[in-house]
Amino acid sequence: MSAERYQRISTFADLRQADLTVCLEQVHKPHNVSAVLRSCDAVGIHTVHAVATDENVMRKDTAMGAEDWVFTQRHGSIQAAVEHFHQQKMQVLVTHLDDEAVDFREIDYTLPTAIILGQEKFGATPEALALADKKIIIPMVGMVQSLNVSVAAALVLYEAQRQRQQAGLYQRNQLSFEQRQILLFKGGFP
Amino acid sequence: MSAERYQRISTFADLRQADLTVCLEQVHKPHNVSAVLRSCDAVGIHTVHAVATDENVMRKDTAMGAEDWVFTQRHGSIQAAVEHFHQQKMQVLVTHLDDEAVDFREIDYTLPTAIILGQEKFGATPEALALADKKIIIPMVGMVQSLNVSVAAALVLYEAQRQRQQAGLYQRNQLSFEQRQILLFKGGFP
Ligand SMILES: C[S@@+](CC[C@H](N)C(=O)[O-])C[C@H]1O[C@@H](n2cnc3c(N)ncnc32)[C@H](O)[C@@H]1O
Ligand SMILES: C[S@@+](CC[C@H](N)C(=O)[O-])C[C@H]1O[C@@H](n2cnc3c(N)ncnc32)[C@H](O)[C@@H]1O
Repeated sequence: MSAERYQRISTFADLRQADLTVCLEQVHKPHNVSAVLRSCDAVGIHTVHAVATDENVMRKDTAMGAEDWVFTQRHGSIQAAVEHFHQQKMQVLVTHLDDEAVDFREIDYTLPTAIILGQEKFGATPEALALADKKIIIPMVGMVQSLNVSVAAALVLYEAQRQRQQAGLYQRNQLSFEQRQILLFKGGFP
Repeated sequence: MSAERYQRISTFADLRQADLTVCLEQVHKPHNVSAVLRSCDAVGIHTVHAVATDENVMRKDTAMGAEDWVFTQRHGSIQAAVEHFHQQKMQVLVTHLDDEAVDFREIDYTLPTAIILGQEKFGATPEALALADKKIIIPMVGMVQSLNVSVAAALVLYEAQRQRQQAGLYQRNQLSFEQRQILLFKGGFP
């Protein structure tokens, strides 16, 4: 690997936010999963979580390569996923179209945070809604009921990016030695 | 049409932002076009513009119905589209991955504004870049080069929504009598 590429990967690894993640609950259209992964890479998410019955939900869809840089972790149930997040002391937010939900811009994303996204047709499951700490909503003033799920994911993630940037939470070098080594290895042998 | 539905459509018509729009330059994947239209409806855009050789680019893709509420206008060339925007005294922004581009959050979207989005593979054309007043970029800290086009559109539109909300630009009732009548007619006979 060239010194330049080593430097590029090393710098991007420094920016990774180990305490910010999303959880896709049965999101299954490949173009949506792919768009979510690209947005995750763009704001510095290291691992994306999925509750999925289809093993291939995270399969490579495009040649853009987000799948090569963002790690994915599958869970057998939303219970298992939320338990994992709570063990990591993350607040668990579920994006949901609900009168009780809080405006997504009122959340403090500088805290360790996991954001649950619901399935394209039916949204988040009742289990996810019950387990999450808060429901959040992106305001809409039109006639259509919901946004595309990858769009909703990106809007919340970029609000988190804005707040974390402002709070100086990038450049903290949060990854472990092993995590960095894996990224450098991947980058050296693409 | 029920009095309730009349009221709902009338209220949503009041929120329409006639001086904010997007222009899709050869964006052609139906799921991307559909996701953009949903976001446009959600922030109150009344007419979306497209430079497209394919007549069907705005065809109905899902049953979500954004196509029923957001009007679309096709232009034969990007020149014709930009001329149209400048006649309406809009600033013309092109979203582009470029070192010279301005951070999208630094723009004043309370001004009349048109936002050009480029094609999935090749981005905006050199003509669009030359004709636009400003290039804007959404910052990314990962390894992947670009965001999905519908994601990029939504991020810029929701920054515009945030600024316009704060500035009190919703509830201005910007539509003409005829435009309102068409919406009410559509809503009455879906
Ligand atoms: C297409 S929506 C699901 C629509 C489903 N009919 C419902 O009522 O939940 C898919 C996912 O996108 C997210 N989403 C879409 N629009 C949203 C909004 N305005 N606020 C919060 N989340 C949203 C949620 O995660 C939702 O589960
Ligand atoms: C997939 S990108 C095109 C990538 C193309 N290789 C290029 O370099 O322009 C499709 C469109 O999404 C928008 N876009 C994607 N990511 C963006 C970003 N970070 N900043 C601004 N616009 C972006 C632009 O409108 C772009 O033309």
